[in-house]
Amino acid sequence: MRVRRKPWASQYIQAHPEVVTDQPQMLKGSWHEKTGGAQLHVEVGTGKGRFVTEMAAKHPELHFVGVEQVESIIVTAVERVVEKELSNVTLIHGQVDELEEMFAPGEVDRLYMNFTDPWPKKRHEKRRLSYKDYLTKYDQVLKAAGEVHLKTDNQQYFEYSLGSFSENGWKLKNISLNLHESEWEADNIHTEYEEKFAANGWPIYRLEAYQYK
Amino acid sequence: MRVRRKPWASQYIQAHPEVVTDQPQMLKGSWHEKTGGAQLHVEVGTGKGRFVTEMAAKHPELHFVGVEQVESIIVTAVERVVEKELSNVTLIHGQVDELEEMFAPGEVDRLYMNFTDPWPKKRHEKRRLSYKDYLTKYDQVLKAAGEVHLKTDNQQYFEYSLGSFSENGWKLKNISLNLHESEWEADNIHTEYEEKFAANGWPIYRLEAYQYK
Repeated sequence: MRVRRKPWASQYIQAHPEVVTDQPQMLKGSWHEKTGGAQLHVEVGTGKGRFVTEMAAKHPELHFVGVEQVESIIVTAVERVVEKELSNVTLIHGQVDELEEMFAPGEVDRLYMNFTDPWPKKRHEKRRLSYKDYLTKYDQVLKAAGEVHLKTDNQQYFEYSLGSFSENGWKLKNISLNLHESEWEADNIHTEYEEKFAANGWPIYRLEAYQYK
Repeated sequence: MRVRRKPWASQYIQAHPEVVTDQPQMLKGSWHEKTGGAQLHVEVGTGKGRFVTEMAAKHPELHFVGVEQVESIIVTAVERVVEKELSNVTLIHGQVDELEEMFAPGEVDRLYMNFTDPWPKKRHEKRRLSYKDYLTKYDQVLKAAGEVHLKTDNQQYFEYSLGSFSENGWKLKNISLNLHESEWEADNIHTEYEEKFAANGWPIYRLEAYQYK
């Protein structure tokens, strides 16, 4: 996602330490204390935060965490949390690579991956968030049988992700090749990307993956 | 598939015991003797036999087996094998349910499932050839890490099959949501159904599933 530089972003982020942090290692292992025992649902590559903020408003019983590395993007998510006065969202300004520095083993109840960059070139495979090295990190931080919920508009990325999860020992379920016409649409929060792609009549793909440890 | 009754079918089948059998238990455990050690590739629900006959012509080093329960359909497959004088095809007039009576454990090198009936109603789930009870049979007759290659035009059946294989301990690979535009198209034999569906511009789905024992 290309965005304009926002010189005020850094200042705005620093002014809202209750919403966003770039020191998640301070929270590692004590998330459930912080959230009063609420289940922890983490979105990797959270972008402008529409998904986490809408989910948080809809599910006050859960705590949502959004991880995003681009400052000028995550700042929009911060604004949304502040405006909606949501107390059950924490944003992490950081890299998904460092997931194991953010969460203790088994601390995460569910992971979401929504319309992340498909990195279509073979030489960029390692950057895809469903690449095996990332799956190892997810496995580390997720509780036993914790699920990853993935959606994408990108056919090749979806094919790749099905194979990558499966070949690396995860089980797949609740797969849809046309989410908006499926039984999962009733509970589906549309992200910015999702609305744009669906408006063209293109299908949205989704899967759930889980691992018994 | 609805077909006209063919009163002559039974007689024609009986006249070609070198091509088609309804006594496969006679061959169980001795397939590799019969085929001179050639790998055994089995298609479940072989229909009119276009796939097995074209594959057999293309791969004389392999032995193909087609299993089909409807007499008035399999007779066309028998005619094709006779006309093409193929010595590396055996047809079985029988039910996929009885796969374990046809092949000894580990005797099959690969299984194909092409455009089999999707049985879309939930109450017919057990009839789908990717239902878990069938997968157990495939696992029985396939060699270690032997593959099932599935293709279908039916989106719901494909979604179901991905989940069924995965949740029952199989791994998935080489998945395509648009076979005819994929890297697997070069080696792809088009079945009768496939040509009809593809002509409408609808995508063909494919997967490979395997299990390490």
